[in-house]
Amino acid sequence: MDAQILETDVAIIGAGPVGLFAIFQLGLVDLKCVVIDTLDRAGGQCAALYPDKPIYDIPTWTVISGQALTDRLLEQIKPFSPQFLFSRMVTNLEELALHQWQITTNMGDIIRAKIIVIAAGAGCLHPKTRSISHNTPHANWGIPLENNLFAVDTEKFETSRKGVFAIGDINSYSGKLKVIISGFHEAALMAQAAFSYVHQQQKLRFQYTTSSSSLQKKLGVK
Amino acid sequence: MDAQILETDVAIIGAGPVGLFAIFQLGLVDLKCVVIDTLDRAGGQCAALYPDKPIYDIPTWTVISGQALTDRLLEQIKPFSPQFLFSRMVTNLEELALHQWQITTNMGDIIRAKIIVIAAGAGCLHPKTRSISHNTPHANWGIPLENNLFAVDTEKFETSRKGVFAIGDINSYSGKLKVIISGFHEAALMAQAAFSYVHQQQKLRFQYTTSSSSLQKKLGVK
Repeated sequence: MDAQILETDVAIIGAGPVGLFAIFQLGLVDLKCVVIDTLDRAGGQCAALYPDKPIYDIPTWTVISGQALTDRLLEQIKPFSPQFLFSRMVTNLEELALHQWQITTNMGDIIRAKIIVIAAGAGCLHPKTRSISHNTPHANWGIPLENNLFAVDTEKFETSRKGVFAIGDINSYSGKLKVIISGFHEAALMAQAAFSYVHQQQKLRFQYTTSSSSLQKKLGVK
Repeated sequence: MDAQILETDVAIIGAGPVGLFAIFQLGLVDLKCVVIDTLDRAGGQCAALYPDKPIYDIPTWTVISGQALTDRLLEQIKPFSPQFLFSRMVTNLEELALHQWQITTNMGDIIRAKIIVIAAGAGCLHPKTRSISHNTPHANWGIPLENNLFAVDTEKFETSRKGVFAIGDINSYSGKLKVIISGFHEAALMAQAAFSYVHQQQKLRFQYTTSSSSLQKKLGVK
C-alpha cells in the first residue's frame, strides 16, 4: 500500500481485540476511525501469534480461540467501515492544535485526527515504536510512562495529554487487570469522552442498542 | 423450596448477567457463591422481562437475545456450581463480625457469607427490597445511596461498607455507563479484592485462563 494521507475523527494505534471494540464504541457515537498496527492483520497477539490459543474468560464463551474472537469482532464493526493501516509503526505523534493530532508512520503515512487512542497491547509498543520506548526520550509524545504503561484516569481512560486515550494492556490505574473485558469497558467509557471532545463538550445522550432505533440504524439492523 | 440456612464465601444479590459473570470471576479465585434473586430464574430483566429482546453491543455478538446471553453465561459458570435462591427478597443484611455477614430473606432463609456482592440491576432493588429503598431508613444496611445507587470506588467496586461490593447498574462512579460490559469488568476487579479479604490480604498471583493449567483445571478443561 502506498503512503496514505488521511483525515479522521479518531486514530487508533493497535488493532487487537480492544482496539477493534473501540471502533464499535466510537462508531455508536458517530466517530470514524483509522487504525494503525505493526502487524499485517487485525487481532493483535491473539490472532497473529496465537490464533488457535483457547481463551476461557470471555463472557458467553466457555472457550474461544484468538482468531475466532478477532473474526467476530471484525464482523461486529463492519457497519462502521474502519480504515486499517497494517504493517506500520507510528514514528511520530504531534499536536498541531487543540484536538488536531498528526501521526506519522515509518511508511510515510500522515494521519490527522481529533482524538488519539492508544490500544496497543503492553508487549506491542516496545521497543518497536521508538518514540514511546522507555529507552529513548519521549519528546514527540510527551506522555509519561510508568513501567512502560500509560497512567490513565478511570473516568475517561485519558493519558496526561488531553485527547490522547490509552485502553487495554498498555494503560495503568489502581486495580488494573490486564484482561480483555477491562479493555472493552475502557473502550466504552473512552468513547463517551471522545464524543464530548469532538463535539466541544456537547453532552451525549446515552442510548441502548436494545431500544434505540437510531443506534440500530447505524448498525444496519433490518 | 424450604427456607435454607447456608454458609458460603460470597453472597451475590442479583442473578442478572453481571451477577452471573461475578460467579465466574469469583470461581476463578476459588470463592464459592450463593445467589439470591427476586425473580424465579436467572438472567434478571434480560431473561425474565425481555428474553427475546435483541442486544447489539455485547462484544463478539452482532446480535444476541437476553435469553441466549443468560443461557451462555449459565453454561460458563457450570464448573463452579453456584447455589441459586430464586423468588426471594433480601430483607436484612447484618454484619456479625469482620467478614461475617448474615442475609435474611422474606422466605426465612439465612445466608452467612464473608463477602456481599450487590449485583442487582438499578431497577430491581426498588422498591421491592424494603431495607435499601430510598423511602425508608437503611438501618440494617448502613450503606448510603446516591440517587438510588451505591457509590463505589473504581479499584474494587466496594461500597462504603468494607466487604460489601456493588457491581452493574446499581453502582455509581465517575464516568459510569449502565452497560453490561462495564459490569463484567467490575466483576473481575471485585473478585480480586474479595479474594484478598477472604484470604486476609494474601496477594493473589494473577493468572490467565489461556496459559494457566491450574485455572483450566478449575474450568474442567480436558
